[in-house]
Amino acid sequence: VTRIALDASGGDFAPTNPVLGALSALEVLPESCEIVLIGPRAEVEAELRSQGEPPDRISVVDAPETIGMAEKPLSAVRSKKRSSIVLGLSMHKAGDVDAFISAGNTGAVMAASTLLLGLTDGVERPAIGAILPSVPDPVLLLDAGANVDCSAEELLGFAYLGAVYARDVLRRPAPRVGLLNIGEESEKGNAVAKEAHQLFRRSDHFTFAGNVEGSDILVNKCDVIACDGFVGNIVLKFYESTGRIFADLLKREVDPAILSGPGMGRVLRFLDYSEYGGAPLLGVRGISIICHGRSSPAAIKNAIRVAMQSVDSHLTQHIRDEFAEGGAVA
Amino acid sequence: VTRIALDASGGDFAPTNPVLGALSALEVLPESCEIVLIGPRAEVEAELRSQGEPPDRISVVDAPETIGMAEKPLSAVRSKKRSSIVLGLSMHKAGDVDAFISAGNTGAVMAASTLLLGLTDGVERPAIGAILPSVPDPVLLLDAGANVDCSAEELLGFAYLGAVYARDVLRRPAPRVGLLNIGEESEKGNAVAKEAHQLFRRSDHFTFAGNVEGSDILVNKCDVIACDGFVGNIVLKFYESTGRIFADLLKREVDPAILSGPGMGRVLRFLDYSEYGGAPLLGVRGISIICHGRSSPAAIKNAIRVAMQSVDSHLTQHIRDEFAEGGAVA
Repeated sequence: VTRIALDASGGDFAPTNPVLGALSALEVLPESCEIVLIGPRAEVEAELRSQGEPPDRISVVDAPETIGMAEKPLSAVRSKKRSSIVLGLSMHKAGDVDAFISAGNTGAVMAASTLLLGLTDGVERPAIGAILPSVPDPVLLLDAGANVDCSAEELLGFAYLGAVYARDVLRRPAPRVGLLNIGEESEKGNAVAKEAHQLFRRSDHFTFAGNVEGSDILVNKCDVIACDGFVGNIVLKFYESTGRIFADLLKREVDPAILSGPGMGRVLRFLDYSEYGGAPLLGVRGISIICHGRSSPAAIKNAIRVAMQSVDSHLTQHIRDEFAEGGAVA
Repeated sequence: VTRIALDASGGDFAPTNPVLGALSALEVLPESCEIVLIGPRAEVEAELRSQGEPPDRISVVDAPETIGMAEKPLSAVRSKKRSSIVLGLSMHKAGDVDAFISAGNTGAVMAASTLLLGLTDGVERPAIGAILPSVPDPVLLLDAGANVDCSAEELLGFAYLGAVYARDVLRRPAPRVGLLNIGEESEKGNAVAKEAHQLFRRSDHFTFAGNVEGSDILVNKCDVIACDGFVGNIVLKFYESTGRIFADLLKREVDPAILSGPGMGRVLRFLDYSEYGGAPLLGVRGISIICHGRSSPAAIKNAIRVAMQSVDSHLTQHIRDEFAEGGAVA
């Protein structure tokens, strides 16, 4: 049995969207998958019952406290022991569940995951892995915002984490890892990027695809792109906004009705990162998945699917093994 | 009389596109504007004549040497004194022309501009200003790749440069300058961004729009966005690639014919940064405009128009005045 804990009080549309996402996930996931909703019991159970008789494979754990989206992460995690984030990750640490998913306060999920689950031996900093829609296959960009001011060794650690995730969850048997930079040549970039290029080139843990430029991100030049969280976060948020801009332009310049056609629905869905099931926090001892605060039920469902795949593929153990073999900073 | 020097041997389609761009610019620019084409004389004159009798307002200066797109900038500039880039900028320095435009080797144009024109007093590093298409008005992002590893003081210098350019050329009387960052709060970002936030806040040279995130770049939150050239270059090239990705998606998912409609032409043209007339190199003592190597005749024409506006508005002098009043690092 695989048990996934889902934060039912986190995000802009809780508990509705987590509950709907959990119910639709159970329809497609194997019988061995159970979901534990963590949130204010009365509220979560009311939402569940409003959808009919809850399936056996869903249970509720009461979390009377809520960490708000704008709260300071570290102090919130330290003071609200009975919040869904602290309770869910404590259950994961204790082995009562196999993964934790939240659309709540990103900083709080990061802080609580690091504090409660701990870091994998050899990992200096955990990284947020963002899936960017790309043709033909999505690409994993990390770090997408957990760390700024990274060293070259930390970027190498992100490459290790990304390569394991790409193998286990994205099903890329021989992941190509690129280093985000401003030119293809090894001598291009800022000081950290130049040093990282040499470390990446010498590593035998993954296939180094070389430096990738901004224009290479979406063109399948690699499976994983390593960068520091400052650049990664800006690229991610910028990309998220281009879909809206593009839709507005089409409405204005082509035809307001164009957006309601079936093909256009596929285009806009393609551009909607939330379809890809949340961002894994990699490098902690467990499976912790961060969803956007505005996640739809479909996005939550996809995150549950990704969590299942992460558990089934033994992601946590593979990351531990990867860093045990000499470590990223060898 | 305003004289614009145009590199007729730089770029992937020289001398054809520079020649066509110059001819069409003269059709719309005032009589007082003259264009000096700089390139291998025989080749440039043949191209000119193939378009009919050349107008009086076009002249050709022979530059028998060519700096290739892949050559090392500094050594090329030092060894090829009779290249279009070195000759054109030397003429600008001597006062024989009022501006220089090139679609050639970007690094060589930057190096030659800095060496030959010199830096404005008080400017620590020149910056490339990139115009990003945005709704309703384009936004100026700088630095777009001239400098990596910038200090907070250098970012403040970019803010000064951008604000003057926005006033003079983009016609924004009270430009709002944002600092590219990963959160709105002043304590967000890497070490340089945090320090820059404080410097920006204390400056009275421009209206500080606060930190802008990746998702804010295209939504008219400000007129100018300051960032270091590493992040700026990645964002710029990433944006350039999204137009192609969108077009491919539409062809695949909606209708292959969709791209040939008139409205769609406007959308794709909107997304084509080259429509905005090249990127000014700001902080050198003169007007130096860098165009993409693949610039169309229309892009060259727009760059000539921007160069004219830069001269007419006394951009160089205004930048000098801006830094004279205490300077960016006061």
